[in-house]
Amino acid sequence: MKNQQRSEETRTRILAAALDCFARYGYAASGVAEICQAAGVSKGAFYHHFAGKQALFQSLLGDWLTDLEQTLTRAASTANSVPERLTNMARMARLIFHSNSPQTSFLLEFWSQASRDAAVRQAIIAPYRRFQRYFADLIQQGVDEGTLQPVNALAAAQTLISLTSGLFLQHLVDPQGADWAQATEDAIHLLLHGLQKPEGGAP
Amino acid sequence: MKNQQRSEETRTRILAAALDCFARYGYAASGVAEICQAAGVSKGAFYHHFAGKQALFQSLLGDWLTDLEQTLTRAASTANSVPERLTNMARMARLIFHSNSPQTSFLLEFWSQASRDAAVRQAIIAPYRRFQRYFADLIQQGVDEGTLQPVNALAAAQTLISLTSGLFLQHLVDPQGADWAQATEDAIHLLLHGLQKPEGGAP
Repeated sequence: MKNQQRSEETRTRILAAALDCFARYGYAASGVAEICQAAGVSKGAFYHHFAGKQALFQSLLGDWLTDLEQTLTRAASTANSVPERLTNMARMARLIFHSNSPQTSFLLEFWSQASRDAAVRQAIIAPYRRFQRYFADLIQQGVDEGTLQPVNALAAAQTLISLTSGLFLQHLVDPQGADWAQATEDAIHLLLHGLQKPEGGAP
Repeated sequence: MKNQQRSEETRTRILAAALDCFARYGYAASGVAEICQAAGVSKGAFYHHFAGKQALFQSLLGDWLTDLEQTLTRAASTANSVPERLTNMARMARLIFHSNSPQTSFLLEFWSQASRDAAVRQAIIAPYRRFQRYFADLIQQGVDEGTLQPVNALAAAQTLISLTSGLFLQHLVDPQGADWAQATEDAIHLLLHGLQKPEGGAP
Protein backbone atom coordinates (compact mmCIF):
# COMPACT_ATOMS: atom_id res chain seq x y z
CA MET A 1 0.00 0.00 0.00
CA LYS A 2 2.80 2.41 0.97
CA ASN A 3 4.69 1.58 -2.22
CA GLN A 4 1.62 2.12 -4.35
CA GLN A 5 1.04 5.47 -2.68
CA ARG A 6 4.65 6.50 -3.23
CA SER A 7 4.44 5.45 -6.88
CA GLU A 8 1.26 7.51 -7.34
CA GLU A 9 2.97 10.53 -5.77
CA THR A 10 5.93 10.16 -8.15
CA ARG A 11 3.59 10.01 -11.14
CA THR A 12 1.78 13.17 -9.96
CA ARG A 13 5.10 14.94 -9.39
CA ILE A 14 6.28 14.09 -12.92
CA LEU A 15 3.02 15.36 -14.44
CA ALA A 16 3.20 18.63 -12.46
CA ALA A 17 6.86 19.16 -13.44
CA ALA A 18 6.05 18.47 -17.10
CA LEU A 19 3.20 21.00 -17.06
CA ASP A 20 5.54 23.56 -15.57
CA CYS A 21 8.29 22.84 -18.16
CA PHE A 22 5.85 22.93 -21.11
CA ALA A 23 4.37 26.24 -19.92
CA ARG A 24 7.80 27.80 -19.39
CA TYR A 25 9.85 26.50 -22.33
CA GLY A 26 7.27 25.01 -24.69
CA TYR A 27 6.60 21.39 -25.58
CA ALA A 28 9.42 20.93 -28.10
CA ALA A 29 12.15 22.40 -25.86
CA SER A 30 11.21 20.29 -22.82
CA GLY A 31 12.94 16.91 -22.98
CA VAL A 32 12.52 13.93 -20.65
CA ALA A 33 15.82 14.94 -18.97
CA GLU A 34 14.52 18.45 -18.15
CA ILE A 35 11.24 17.05 -16.85
CA CYS A 36 13.07 14.50 -14.63
CA GLN A 37 15.33 17.22 -13.24
CA ALA A 38 12.37 19.52 -12.50
CA ALA A 39 10.49 16.64 -10.83
CA GLY A 40 13.54 15.42 -8.91
CA VAL A 41 13.15 11.84 -10.21
CA SER A 42 15.43 9.46 -12.10
CA LYS A 43 14.92 8.58 -15.75
CA GLY A 44 14.19 5.06 -14.57
CA ALA A 45 11.30 6.32 -12.47
CA PHE A 46 10.03 8.38 -15.43
CA TYR A 47 10.02 5.42 -17.83
CA HIS A 48 8.37 3.25 -15.18
CA HIS A 49 5.34 5.56 -15.46
CA PHE A 50 5.45 6.80 -19.07
CA ALA A 51 6.67 5.35 -22.37
CA GLY A 52 7.94 8.81 -23.33
CA LYS A 53 7.12 12.48 -23.58
CA GLN A 54 4.22 11.91 -25.94
CA ALA A 55 2.63 9.30 -23.66
CA LEU A 56 3.00 11.75 -20.78
CA PHE A 57 1.32 14.45 -22.86
CA GLN A 58 -1.55 12.07 -23.63
CA SER A 59 -1.99 11.52 -19.87
CA LEU A 60 -2.08 15.27 -19.26
CA LEU A 61 -4.52 15.82 -22.09
CA GLY A 62 -6.65 12.88 -20.95
CA ASP A 63 -6.81 14.14 -17.34
CA TRP A 64 -7.68 17.64 -18.51
CA LEU A 65 -10.42 16.41 -20.86
CA THR A 66 -11.88 14.16 -18.14
CA ASP A 67 -12.03 17.19 -15.80
CA LEU A 68 -13.60 19.24 -18.58
CA GLU A 69 -16.20 16.60 -19.32
CA GLN A 70 -17.09 16.28 -15.61
CA THR A 71 -17.42 20.07 -15.35
CA LEU A 72 -19.69 20.16 -18.40
CA THR A 73 -21.79 17.21 -17.20
CA ARG A 74 -22.21 18.88 -13.78
CA ALA A 75 -23.25 22.11 -15.51
CA ALA A 76 -25.84 20.22 -17.52
CA SER A 77 -27.30 18.17 -14.66
CA THR A 78 -29.70 20.83 -13.32
CA ALA A 79 -31.01 21.96 -16.72
CA ASN A 80 -34.45 21.08 -18.07
CA SER A 81 -33.73 21.34 -21.79
CA VAL A 82 -30.79 21.13 -24.18
CA PRO A 83 -30.65 24.91 -24.86
CA GLU A 84 -30.55 25.44 -21.08
CA ARG A 85 -27.79 22.84 -20.77
CA LEU A 86 -25.72 24.57 -23.46
CA THR A 87 -26.25 27.93 -21.75
CA ASN A 88 -25.12 26.48 -18.39
CA MET A 89 -22.06 24.95 -20.06
CA ALA A 90 -21.16 28.33 -21.59
CA ARG A 91 -21.28 29.82 -18.08
CA MET A 92 -18.75 27.21 -16.97
CA ALA A 93 -16.26 28.81 -19.35
CA ARG A 94 -15.44 31.24 -16.53
CA LEU A 95 -14.17 28.33 -14.45
CA ILE A 96 -12.36 26.61 -17.31
CA PHE A 97 -10.64 29.73 -18.64
CA HIS A 98 -9.56 30.93 -15.21
CA SER A 99 -8.32 27.70 -13.66
CA ASN A 100 -6.52 26.04 -16.56
CA SER A 101 -4.66 28.87 -18.22
CA PRO A 102 -1.11 27.98 -17.10
CA GLN A 103 -1.67 24.24 -17.54
CA THR A 104 -2.99 24.53 -21.09
CA SER A 105 -0.75 27.16 -22.67
CA PHE A 106 1.47 24.39 -24.04
CA LEU A 107 -1.52 23.14 -26.05
CA LEU A 108 -0.73 25.78 -28.66
CA GLU A 109 2.70 24.37 -29.29
CA PHE A 110 1.38 20.85 -29.21
CA TRP A 111 -1.14 21.78 -31.93
CA SER A 112 1.78 23.12 -33.90
CA GLN A 113 3.70 19.83 -33.47
CA ALA A 114 0.57 17.95 -34.48
CA SER A 115 0.36 19.85 -37.76
CA ARG A 116 3.84 18.54 -38.65
CA ASP A 117 3.79 15.07 -37.07
CA ALA A 118 1.13 12.41 -37.71
CA ALA A 119 1.93 10.51 -34.47
CA VAL A 120 1.35 13.62 -32.35
CA ARG A 121 -1.80 14.39 -34.35
CA GLN A 122 -3.25 11.00 -33.39
CA ALA A 123 -2.99 11.94 -29.71
CA ILE A 124 -5.35 14.88 -30.28
CA ILE A 125 -7.81 13.29 -32.68
CA ALA A 126 -9.18 10.56 -30.41
CA PRO A 127 -10.39 12.89 -27.61
CA TYR A 128 -11.53 15.38 -30.24
CA ARG A 129 -13.80 12.75 -31.80
CA ARG A 130 -15.09 11.85 -28.30
CA PHE A 131 -16.14 15.48 -27.73
CA GLN A 132 -17.69 15.71 -31.17
CA ARG A 133 -19.76 12.59 -30.41
CA TYR A 134 -20.71 13.97 -26.96
CA PHE A 135 -22.06 17.22 -28.43
CA ALA A 136 -23.66 15.52 -31.43
CA ASP A 137 -25.61 13.28 -29.00
CA LEU A 138 -26.61 16.31 -26.92
CA ILE A 139 -27.80 18.24 -29.99
CA GLN A 140 -29.69 15.22 -31.34
CA GLN A 141 -31.40 15.02 -27.95
CA GLY A 142 -32.45 18.67 -28.35
CA VAL A 143 -33.81 17.96 -31.83
CA ASP A 144 -35.71 14.95 -30.46
CA GLU A 145 -37.16 16.88 -27.51
CA GLY A 146 -38.24 19.63 -29.92
CA THR A 147 -36.19 22.49 -28.47
CA LEU A 148 -33.66 22.64 -31.32
CA GLN A 149 -34.13 23.08 -35.07
CA PRO A 150 -33.94 19.83 -37.06
CA VAL A 151 -30.24 20.36 -37.82
CA ASN A 152 -27.58 17.84 -38.79
CA ALA A 153 -26.36 17.04 -35.26
CA LEU A 154 -22.79 16.20 -36.28
CA ALA A 155 -22.37 19.41 -38.30
CA ALA A 156 -23.85 21.44 -35.44
CA ALA A 157 -21.50 19.74 -32.96
CA GLN A 158 -18.62 20.59 -35.28
CA THR A 159 -19.74 24.24 -35.27
CA LEU A 160 -19.96 24.30 -31.48
CA ILE A 161 -16.47 22.79 -31.15
CA SER A 162 -15.03 25.19 -33.75
CA LEU A 163 -16.52 28.15 -31.92
CA THR A 164 -15.21 27.12 -28.52
CA SER A 165 -11.81 26.08 -29.94
CA GLY A 166 -11.50 29.53 -31.51
CA LEU A 167 -12.36 31.22 -28.22
CA PHE A 168 -9.91 28.99 -26.38
CA LEU A 169 -7.20 29.74 -28.96
CA GLN A 170 -7.68 33.48 -28.58
CA HIS A 171 -7.71 33.13 -24.79
CA LEU A 172 -4.38 31.26 -24.91
CA VAL A 173 -2.75 33.78 -27.26
CA ASP A 174 -4.02 36.88 -25.49
CA PRO A 175 -5.53 36.09 -22.04
CA GLN A 176 -5.97 39.78 -21.14
CA GLY A 177 -7.26 40.83 -24.59
CA ALA A 178 -10.93 40.33 -23.74
CA ASP A 179 -13.27 38.86 -21.15
CA TRP A 180 -13.17 35.47 -22.87
CA ALA A 181 -15.67 33.91 -20.47
CA GLN A 182 -18.20 36.64 -21.31
CA ALA A 183 -17.34 36.28 -25.01
CA THR A 184 -18.10 32.55 -24.74
CA GLU A 185 -21.50 33.20 -23.13
CA ASP A 186 -22.31 35.79 -25.83
CA ALA A 187 -21.18 33.45 -28.63
CA ILE A 188 -23.24 30.47 -27.43
CA HIS A 189 -26.25 32.76 -27.00
CA LEU A 190 -25.82 34.00 -30.57
CA LEU A 191 -25.39 30.48 -31.93
CA LEU A 192 -28.59 29.39 -30.18
CA HIS A 193 -30.68 32.33 -31.33
CA GLY A 194 -29.19 33.16 -34.73
CA LEU A 195 -27.96 36.37 -36.26
CA GLN A 196 -30.44 36.77 -39.08
CA LYS A 197 -33.98 38.10 -38.78
CA PRO A 198 -36.58 35.63 -40.02
CA GLU A 199 -37.64 36.79 -43.48
CA GLY A 200 -40.77 38.89 -43.44
CA GLY A 201 -41.45 38.04 -39.79
CA ALA A 202 -41.10 39.97 -36.55
CA PRO A 203 -37.74 39.58 -34.74
CA MET B 1 14.70 51.13 -62.22
CA LYS B 2 16.70 47.93 -62.73
CA ASN B 3 18.07 48.19 -59.19
CA GLN B 4 14.63 48.69 -57.75
CA GLN B 5 13.37 45.63 -59.63
CA ARG B 6 16.28 43.55 -58.39
CA SER B 7 15.68 44.74 -54.84
CA GLU B 8 11.98 43.78 -55.08
CA GLU B 9 12.97 40.34 -56.40
CA THR B 10 15.34 39.82 -53.46
CA ARG B 11 12.63 40.80 -50.99
CA THR B 12 10.18 38.35 -52.61
CA ARG B 13 12.83 35.60 -52.57
CA ILE B 14 13.49 36.15 -48.84
CA LEU B 15 9.77 36.01 -48.05
CA ALA B 16 9.29 32.78 -50.03
CA ALA B 17 12.33 31.17 -48.37
CA ALA B 18 11.08 32.19 -44.92
CA LEU B 19 7.64 30.68 -45.61
CA ASP B 20 9.33 27.47 -46.68
CA CYS B 21 11.59 27.38 -43.57
CA PHE B 22 8.72 28.16 -41.18
CA ALA B 23 6.54 25.45 -42.72
CA ARG B 24 9.35 22.87 -42.62
CA TYR B 25 11.07 23.56 -39.30
CA GLY B 26 8.70 25.87 -37.44
CA TYR B 27 9.04 29.54 -36.60
CA ALA B 28 11.31 29.17 -33.56
CA ALA B 29 13.81 26.85 -35.27
CA SER B 30 14.19 29.05 -38.38
CA GLY B 31 16.81 31.73 -37.76
CA VAL B 32 17.83 34.59 -40.04
CA ALA B 33 20.90 32.55 -41.05
CA GLU B 34 18.75 29.61 -42.23
CA ILE B 35 16.40 31.92 -44.11
CA CYS B 36 19.33 33.68 -45.82
CA GLN B 37 20.85 30.36 -46.83
CA ALA B 38 17.53 29.08 -48.22
CA ALA B 39 17.02 32.33 -50.14
CA GLY B 40 20.63 32.47 -51.36
CA VAL B 41 21.12 36.02 -50.08
CA SER B 42 23.59 37.64 -47.69
CA LYS B 43 22.67 38.75 -44.17
CA GLY B 44 23.35 42.31 -45.35
CA ALA B 45 20.67 41.93 -48.04
CA PHE B 46 18.27 40.47 -45.47
CA TYR B 47 18.72 43.35 -43.02
CA HIS B 48 18.40 45.85 -45.88
CA HIS B 49 14.82 44.62 -46.27
CA PHE B 50 13.80 43.53 -42.76
CA ALA B 51 14.74 44.65 -39.24
CA GLY B 52 14.65 41.00 -38.16
CA LYS B 53 12.69 37.76 -38.18
CA GLN B 54 9.71 39.29 -36.43
CA ALA B 55 9.49 42.19 -38.90
CA LEU B 56 9.63 39.64 -41.73
CA PHE B 57 6.81 37.68 -40.11
CA GLN B 58 4.76 40.86 -39.84
CA SER B 59 5.25 41.41 -43.59
CA LEU B 60 4.10 37.86 -44.33
CA LEU B 61 1.09 38.19 -42.04
CA GLY B 62 0.28 41.62 -43.47
CA ASP B 63 0.43 40.36 -47.07
CA TRP B 64 -1.71 37.35 -46.22
CA LEU B 65 -4.31 39.46 -44.41
CA THR B 66 -4.44 41.96 -47.27
CA ASP B 67 -5.08 39.08 -49.70
CA LEU B 68 -7.72 37.70 -47.35
CA GLU B 69 -9.45 41.07 -47.03
CA GLN B 70 -9.46 41.52 -50.83
CA THR B 71 -10.91 38.02 -51.28
CA LEU B 72 -13.63 38.75 -48.72
CA THR B 73 -14.42 42.17 -50.21
CA ARG B 74 -14.67 40.63 -53.69
CA ALA B 75 -16.98 37.93 -52.30
CA ALA B 76 -19.18 40.58 -50.77
CA SER B 77 -19.36 42.89 -53.79
CA THR B 78 -22.15 41.08 -55.66
CA ALA B 79 -24.38 40.51 -52.63
CA ASN B 80 -27.58 42.47 -51.95
CA SER B 81 -27.73 42.10 -48.17
CA VAL B 82 -25.39 41.47 -45.25
CA PRO B 83 -26.57 37.86 -44.68
CA GLU B 84 -25.91 37.19 -48.38
CA ARG B 85 -22.46 38.80 -48.07
CA LEU B 86 -21.61 36.60 -45.09
CA THR B 87 -22.82 33.51 -46.97
CA ASN B 88 -20.66 34.43 -49.99
CA MET B 89 -17.67 34.98 -47.71
CA ALA B 90 -18.18 31.55 -46.14
CA ARG B 91 -18.08 30.05 -49.65
CA MET B 92 -14.69 31.70 -50.17
CA ALA B 93 -13.33 29.49 -47.38
CA ARG B 94 -12.81 26.85 -50.08
CA LEU B 95 -10.29 29.12 -51.78
CA ILE B 96 -8.62 30.27 -48.57
CA PHE B 97 -8.27 26.81 -47.03
CA HIS B 98 -6.97 25.23 -50.21
CA SER B 99 -4.50 27.85 -51.38
CA ASN B 100 -2.90 28.98 -48.13
CA SER B 101 -2.35 25.76 -46.24
CA PRO B 102 1.45 25.45 -46.63
CA GLN B 103 2.02 29.18 -46.20
CA THR B 104 0.02 29.44 -43.00
CA SER B 105 0.95 26.29 -41.09
CA PHE B 106 3.62 28.25 -39.20
CA LEU B 107 0.82 30.43 -37.79
CA LEU B 108 0.23 27.77 -35.15
CA GLU B 109 3.73 28.05 -33.82
CA PHE B 110 3.62 31.79 -34.06
CA TRP B 111 0.48 31.79 -31.90
CA SER B 112 2.40 29.68 -29.43
CA GLN B 113 5.29 32.18 -29.38
CA ALA B 114 2.77 34.98 -28.95
CA SER B 115 1.35 33.36 -25.83
CA ARG B 116 4.82 33.53 -24.24
CA ASP B 117 6.16 36.79 -25.68
CA ALA B 118 4.39 40.17 -25.50
CA ALA B 119 6.36 41.61 -28.44
CA VAL B 120 5.28 38.78 -30.74
CA ARG B 121 1.73 39.10 -29.42
CA GLN B 122 1.60 42.75 -30.53
CA ALA B 123 2.26 41.66 -34.14
CA ILE B 124 -0.96 39.63 -34.13
CA ILE B 125 -3.20 41.98 -32.19
CA ALA B 126 -3.20 44.93 -34.61
CA PRO B 127 -4.50 43.00 -37.67
CA TYR B 128 -6.84 41.07 -35.39
CA ARG B 129 -8.44 44.34 -34.20
CA ARG B 130 -8.68 45.49 -37.85
CA PHE B 131 -10.68 42.35 -38.74
CA GLN B 132 -12.87 42.73 -35.67
CA ARG B 133 -13.67 46.32 -36.71
CA TYR B 134 -14.31 45.19 -40.33
CA PHE B 135 -16.87 42.57 -39.26
CA ALA B 136 -18.41 44.79 -36.57
CA ASP B 137 -19.05 47.45 -39.25
CA LEU B 138 -20.53 44.83 -41.58
CA ILE B 139 -22.84 43.45 -38.86
CA GLN B 140 -23.91 46.95 -37.81
CA GLN B 141 -24.78 47.57 -41.47
CA GLY B 142 -26.97 44.44 -41.38
CA VAL B 143 -28.69 45.66 -38.22
CA ASP B 144 -29.24 49.07 -39.83
CA GLU B 145 -30.63 47.60 -43.08
CA GLY B 146 -32.95 45.41 -40.99
CA THR B 147 -31.67 41.99 -42.13
CA LEU B 148 -29.90 41.14 -38.84
CA GLN B 149 -31.22 40.98 -35.30
CA PRO B 150 -30.40 44.08 -33.20
CA VAL B 151 -27.29 42.44 -31.74
CA ASN B 152 -24.20 44.03 -30.19
CA ALA B 153 -22.14 44.31 -33.39
CA LEU B 154 -18.75 44.02 -31.67
CA ALA B 155 -19.76 40.89 -29.72
CA ALA B 156 -21.21 39.33 -32.87
CA ALA B 157 -18.01 40.15 -34.79
CA GLN B 158 -16.05 38.50 -31.98
CA THR B 159 -18.22 35.39 -32.33
CA LEU B 160 -17.71 35.29 -36.08
CA ILE B 161 -13.94 35.62 -35.70
CA SER B 162 -13.85 32.98 -32.94
CA LEU B 163 -15.80 30.58 -35.12
CA THR B 164 -13.60 31.03 -38.17
CA SER B 165 -10.40 31.01 -36.07
CA GLY B 166 -11.49 27.68 -34.59
CA LEU B 167 -12.19 26.24 -38.04
CA PHE B 168 -8.85 27.53 -39.29
CA LEU B 169 -7.06 26.05 -36.26
CA GLN B 170 -8.60 22.63 -36.83
CA HIS B 171 -7.78 22.85 -40.54
CA LEU B 172 -4.13 23.60 -39.72
CA VAL B 173 -3.86 20.75 -37.18
CA ASP B 174 -5.68 18.17 -39.26
CA PRO B 175 -6.17 19.28 -42.90
CA GLN B 176 -7.55 15.88 -43.98
CA GLY B 177 -9.75 15.42 -40.89
CA ALA B 178 -12.84 17.00 -42.41
CA ASP B 179 -14.06 19.05 -45.36
CA TRP B 180 -13.23 22.29 -43.54
CA ALA B 181 -14.60 24.48 -46.33
CA GLN B 182 -17.96 22.71 -46.09
CA ALA B 183 -17.77 22.90 -42.29
CA THR B 184 -17.27 26.67 -42.59
CA GLU B 185 -20.32 27.05 -44.83
CA ASP B 186 -22.40 24.94 -42.42
CA ALA B 187 -21.16 26.90 -39.40
CA ILE B 188 -21.91 30.34 -40.88
CA HIS B 189 -25.34 29.09 -41.95
CA LEU B 190 -26.02 27.89 -38.41
CA LEU B 191 -24.78 31.15 -36.89
CA LEU B 192 -27.07 33.12 -39.20
CA HIS B 193 -30.16 31.02 -38.57
CA GLY B 194 -29.69 29.88 -34.97
CA LEU B 195 -29.84 26.49 -33.34
CA GLN B 196 -32.82 26.97 -31.08
CA LYS B 197 -36.47 26.80 -32.12
CA PRO B 198 -38.33 30.03 -31.35
CA GLU B 199 -40.39 29.41 -28.21
CA GLY B 200 -43.95 28.46 -28.94
CA GLY B 201 -43.57 29.38 -32.62
CA ALA B 202 -43.19 27.39 -35.81
CA PRO B 203 -39.58 26.58 -36.86
